[in-house]
Amino acid sequence: MKKILFTGLMVLSALGIQAQEDLAQYVDPMIGTAKMGHTYPGATVPFGSVQLSPDTDTIPYEVNGRYNPEVYRYCAGYQYDDATIVGFSHTHFSGTGHSDLGDFLVMPTSGPLQLNPGTAMDPDSGYRSRFSHDRENASPAYYQVELDDYDINAELTATTRVGVHRYTFSEGEDAHVILDLMSGIYNYDDKNVWTFMRVENDTLVTGFRETTGWARTRKVFFALSFDKPIAHYGNRKYDEKQAYRGFWGRFNESENFPEIAGRKIRAYFDFDLKDGDELIAKLAISPVSTEGAIRNMQEETPGWDFDAIRQAGVDRWNKELNKVQVSTIRDSDKVNFYTAMYHAFLGPTVYGDVDGRYRGLDMNIHQADGFTNYTSFSLWDTYRALHPLFNVLQPARNRDMVKSMLAHFDQSVHPMLPIWSHYANENWCMIGYHSASVIADAVVKGTVTSDLDHALNAAVTTAKTAYFDGIGSYMEMGYVPEDVSGASVSKTLEYAYDDWAIAQMASAIGKEEIAREFTGRAGNYKNVFDSQSGFMRPKLKDGSWKRGFDPLDTHGQGFIEGNAWNYSLYVPHAPEQMIGMMGGDVRFVEHLDSLFSMDLPDRYFANTEDISREGIIGNYVHGNEPSHHVVYLYNWTDQPWKSQDKIRMILRAMYQTGADGLGGNDDFGQMSAWYLFSALGFYPVAPGSVEYALGSPLVEEATINLENGNTFTVEAQNQTDENVYVSKVLLNGELLSEPFIQHADIMKGGKLTFIMKRRPNKKIFSKD
Amino acid sequence: MKKILFTGLMVLSALGIQAQEDLAQYVDPMIGTAKMGHTYPGATVPFGSVQLSPDTDTIPYEVNGRYNPEVYRYCAGYQYDDATIVGFSHTHFSGTGHSDLGDFLVMPTSGPLQLNPGTAMDPDSGYRSRFSHDRENASPAYYQVELDDYDINAELTATTRVGVHRYTFSEGEDAHVILDLMSGIYNYDDKNVWTFMRVENDTLVTGFRETTGWARTRKVFFALSFDKPIAHYGNRKYDEKQAYRGFWGRFNESENFPEIAGRKIRAYFDFDLKDGDELIAKLAISPVSTEGAIRNMQEETPGWDFDAIRQAGVDRWNKELNKVQVSTIRDSDKVNFYTAMYHAFLGPTVYGDVDGRYRGLDMNIHQADGFTNYTSFSLWDTYRALHPLFNVLQPARNRDMVKSMLAHFDQSVHPMLPIWSHYANENWCMIGYHSASVIADAVVKGTVTSDLDHALNAAVTTAKTAYFDGIGSYMEMGYVPEDVSGASVSKTLEYAYDDWAIAQMASAIGKEEIAREFTGRAGNYKNVFDSQSGFMRPKLKDGSWKRGFDPLDTHGQGFIEGNAWNYSLYVPHAPEQMIGMMGGDVRFVEHLDSLFSMDLPDRYFANTEDISREGIIGNYVHGNEPSHHVVYLYNWTDQPWKSQDKIRMILRAMYQTGADGLGGNDDFGQMSAWYLFSALGFYPVAPGSVEYALGSPLVEEATINLENGNTFTVEAQNQTDENVYVSKVLLNGELLSEPFIQHADIMKGGKLTFIMKRRPNKKIFSKD
Repeated sequence: MKKILFTGLMVLSALGIQAQEDLAQYVDPMIGTAKMGHTYPGATVPFGSVQLSPDTDTIPYEVNGRYNPEVYRYCAGYQYDDATIVGFSHTHFSGTGHSDLGDFLVMPTSGPLQLNPGTAMDPDSGYRSRFSHDRENASPAYYQVELDDYDINAELTATTRVGVHRYTFSEGEDAHVILDLMSGIYNYDDKNVWTFMRVENDTLVTGFRETTGWARTRKVFFALSFDKPIAHYGNRKYDEKQAYRGFWGRFNESENFPEIAGRKIRAYFDFDLKDGDELIAKLAISPVSTEGAIRNMQEETPGWDFDAIRQAGVDRWNKELNKVQVSTIRDSDKVNFYTAMYHAFLGPTVYGDVDGRYRGLDMNIHQADGFTNYTSFSLWDTYRALHPLFNVLQPARNRDMVKSMLAHFDQSVHPMLPIWSHYANENWCMIGYHSASVIADAVVKGTVTSDLDHALNAAVTTAKTAYFDGIGSYMEMGYVPEDVSGASVSKTLEYAYDDWAIAQMASAIGKEEIAREFTGRAGNYKNVFDSQSGFMRPKLKDGSWKRGFDPLDTHGQGFIEGNAWNYSLYVPHAPEQMIGMMGGDVRFVEHLDSLFSMDLPDRYFANTEDISREGIIGNYVHGNEPSHHVVYLYNWTDQPWKSQDKIRMILRAMYQTGADGLGGNDDFGQMSAWYLFSALGFYPVAPGSVEYALGSPLVEEATINLENGNTFTVEAQNQTDENVYVSKVLLNGELLSEPFIQHADIMKGGKLTFIMKRRPNKKIFSKD
Repeated sequence: MKKILFTGLMVLSALGIQAQEDLAQYVDPMIGTAKMGHTYPGATVPFGSVQLSPDTDTIPYEVNGRYNPEVYRYCAGYQYDDATIVGFSHTHFSGTGHSDLGDFLVMPTSGPLQLNPGTAMDPDSGYRSRFSHDRENASPAYYQVELDDYDINAELTATTRVGVHRYTFSEGEDAHVILDLMSGIYNYDDKNVWTFMRVENDTLVTGFRETTGWARTRKVFFALSFDKPIAHYGNRKYDEKQAYRGFWGRFNESENFPEIAGRKIRAYFDFDLKDGDELIAKLAISPVSTEGAIRNMQEETPGWDFDAIRQAGVDRWNKELNKVQVSTIRDSDKVNFYTAMYHAFLGPTVYGDVDGRYRGLDMNIHQADGFTNYTSFSLWDTYRALHPLFNVLQPARNRDMVKSMLAHFDQSVHPMLPIWSHYANENWCMIGYHSASVIADAVVKGTVTSDLDHALNAAVTTAKTAYFDGIGSYMEMGYVPEDVSGASVSKTLEYAYDDWAIAQMASAIGKEEIAREFTGRAGNYKNVFDSQSGFMRPKLKDGSWKRGFDPLDTHGQGFIEGNAWNYSLYVPHAPEQMIGMMGGDVRFVEHLDSLFSMDLPDRYFANTEDISREGIIGNYVHGNEPSHHVVYLYNWTDQPWKSQDKIRMILRAMYQTGADGLGGNDDFGQMSAWYLFSALGFYPVAPGSVEYALGSPLVEEATINLENGNTFTVEAQNQTDENVYVSKVLLNGELLSEPFIQHADIMKGGKLTFIMKRRPNKKIFSKD
């Protein structure tokens, strides 16, 4: 485990009376950087546009024209077990199951110049450097590593739109900074559409990079500034061909030539330094222009005080982390709790310049009027718990995220809200139209109170886009036929849930006709339930069940990233009806119990990238999203106590300290949001409802400092490692008879008290 | 010769009292479209951004990795002798000797859809169509052709930023409009960096095309609107590979899918028409955004009245053409005169949206504040006579062109004014820094009166950019050594001239120190004169002459697109000193006489693209620029009359009616500007001087209606085909004793009278 830097002590809260603690000290950005967590250890601020982080390899997406499965490990650029660092790039997704970005890789070196990255097997063959975790530190808004091959100490910090590098060169002679415009994450051959670079003067470089990858048409601009003059510079161009040469031939474009463009360029900047000298580099990004990048840099980092910029970043983290102040029975729980909060607050990320301008889906430049524009919506993941968490902890930001989604809708040529969108592109990843859920949840919970017709219209229009992923058949037939569109059961179930969410929103704003229509659609889950097998099951166009059904298999069975055992439980909006449909409480509890205890052989999920052994308990797949609500379903049976030990087990098993502490991709905070809710004792089973299902808290006490100034406290009396069961629950001193609380209970402030004990209270929330 | 459409009669001038004639009727846009004129016949308005013109072939720049010399014939997209038309694209250079553009090729077809252009040898193999000049008409702002393969009558017109198409389909069923985003002029493989297209609704399509070609990083946006709904649409994508497919696989992107992106795309739009139906399409371009293109379309072409748009274009042409009203002894002279005016007013072209926004050299979007921004500066050509012509006929526009050049200087990362720039790119074509000449000429002639320090500083800074094309050595040694930079004599001579121009500007604004410095540099032409051979000659670093000198050869002799015989005369700013240096009047006149009468074997200019037999008289190369001032040099000798018959001969030989009427590339109006000045009887031998050398007018009478409201009249008494000599000249009734007039003489209005006769007056302007 990493050493944790103590960067400050108690400071007074800018928000109010609550004293701010230095909670950033508990965050360990290294958690999740090994195996399949897909987090990155680098420097960033809450929801920052820049994620300045080391890339330990930049693996090609294809080898000999075929998909390279190795690339999946490098979604966030960094793998803890690697021995070398290629460089520090400025954009990274956190925890995603596909990737992109890795823009503007910067690497300091010394000695003879090398312009290719070299290989992990033979680091000396390129500019990469060996490093050791012994000489590496990661904390909020700060990352430090000793680059052993060059004896360079590299430190990174960031503001929202600027990455700041401080390099200390042991040997100042022959000091280089490499700017690799070819490097990237998920590095398709030909991914670079075009790159452009200008050396504006002896300390400022600008340019852009356009890529086609996960985002089909993505353009990021940069401005790179040094605190010491460039002594000499150059580049190498690896383009297979160059269209027109002609009179360009009069120049030596590869040395001290201030303007270069092409598809494949690596540039370098040499500095005359003395041994031990520091060099500070700031790189600002912009989706709009180099002018925008320069302005971002000027406004966010006017000076060269690395330590002050870092401290401001830590302060911003502390401000966010202090929204929940917890005490826990184990120190490591605090590390997990605040690291989960840290991961939950990494995205969606701010997308736009300090002046509010940003690139829209139509590739035009738009002005965000009265809101901050966000991008990178991993919605199939984050609608479940992350956006609901924001409705508690970040309502102002979530309101802006909804506005950003509506702007996407307005700008897109498709009449659709985002599916998985990043950097002014829709990448269409995964299924459903879960923007509708996010918006509905924000509306019913009072986060979003204006522009409601626009919001409802966007959701309804999205849900009626017939050409998208079987929606046409779904509207016609009440289900997605497997022979029309694969993963048809997953789609049918998720559409039905989203439809219910739309109905809730429609109802909340008095559009009863739409509410009725979508309440009707919300029942479509029934159309894929096979009462004979007791599972949801793929149906064909002709109404018959698809043959050859195996409810354990995740492949070709009508599901995506899940099997029928898990996905059959996906009716979060109508658990009672689902339980009835599946044979009533007894049979349903048997199903759940079996899920957690049965054996799932590897072959059933092999080659499903988002599911790995680490994330599985029995046949329950926590490492991927479709089951995140499942453990809470016991609440709708006569044995709600059965959720309690399992929640504690999941919290402990799937969220551990250490680089390999996460049981699966963090999925841009969704896994972490599950942890945070569950650790606090409640969970939003069906976003779009104002109800939370109660579980078994992990914390001893938690004070939630709400944006509205109220305080909601969770207390777990008799909390120990053994006392995982809840004997009773009180809300503001009143005994709860049902395992649910309401959103308003939280927002108006108050206290939720769990009385913990070693053995289950099997009568708790008894239906009798 | 083409039929000329009579589009209107006399209308009252918007400018003032002068009645406007329908002079557009004399313009024949077909002139220069055969062989090497490199003009285009399509529809455009004066200085318009859009040049909507047929492309008869789109030849690849390389075949099997080697330069394809055929491509040179297609600089303007159209070759008169071709039998097929590929389609109508929206951007074309006029008369250039290298090319680019050809953006957004649109082609109407009917019957079975074909999406490849096919070949000239086998037109049926693709969407191209046969056509005949019998069913083709070209006039200002209008082009019409019958597409024989489809029985479609295609008509084109344009506003500044919008191309308007009217297609009449004989067979309305299966009517298609193809939008070929791959097609282009000088079509390098891989020229398309990226293209992007959105079908916004059933009548509007938007997108952009980014290319790397002559312009390295060029981006043009479009908006395409139809007056009838698209019934069905699709595209084919020819990209070798596509980076990420993933969830895009759920769509059929090739049919009725509203958003497509890639490197190589051809799209089509189908319409349900009846036989004989018209379809109107408007395509607006923008250097800024699709939003900008839409706004350009809305403001410039709010409706669908093709004929009204055409008439407005004709009116604009008439307004410009009426700036000079001539009478001539032959009807064909009027055709040549007004066609020359037409060609002279095709460029530089407006570059920016209706709101004044445009893309700058830094790729940022700039606002043209108080001026119209122009691009496509073919300066090695146009500084000679075209910009000087603008100082007479288009001072307001020339002022804005100077502002555009200064904006270029401010935005470029190179401390340089444009060399040959187009579409926010410097293509560096040819030599010298002739922006300095253009600006100096505009300053000394009073066209540019503000921001003078900025202008002088830009010129001086440009002239001191040591890394450009031997300037470093030139500044150090007083000449460009051939072993440092090829074409060293041409460079030395042109730098020396430009330096003199800078000195004139410095002097005009009272910067005497700079004037002295550059007057010094202006004498550098002496350093490459070899008194032994009597020619300018390439010198090496060590001060010795390069061996193996052949003054007739255009290859490897220190000259570019010229030989020593022609280029040795390039001291336009100091003819007297040059004549002295070359041995005095007698020897110099012998040199000139020989130039026009000697034989130049083909081998001396073979493979020099800009020189062809058609443009040569003796060893005098009129078809290319370096000699354009030469015939006027007789004025500095004791035999000025010797210029007179030769001017008449050149006017008649090099400028004829018919598609093959031009003696060489029109070079964006420079050839035409030579014609116009010479036909009017005077010529700016050294731009930067306020003096014009007199020649022998071709017109009978010409009234120049100046922007300042004054009128300057040229009268040639006794003008006949035989009376090519001038017996005397009167300015405002006063006999001229020297063969020069001043710019102020013109601008204040007045009358210049030439008395013509059959035999030379050998005493005219006698020095005695």
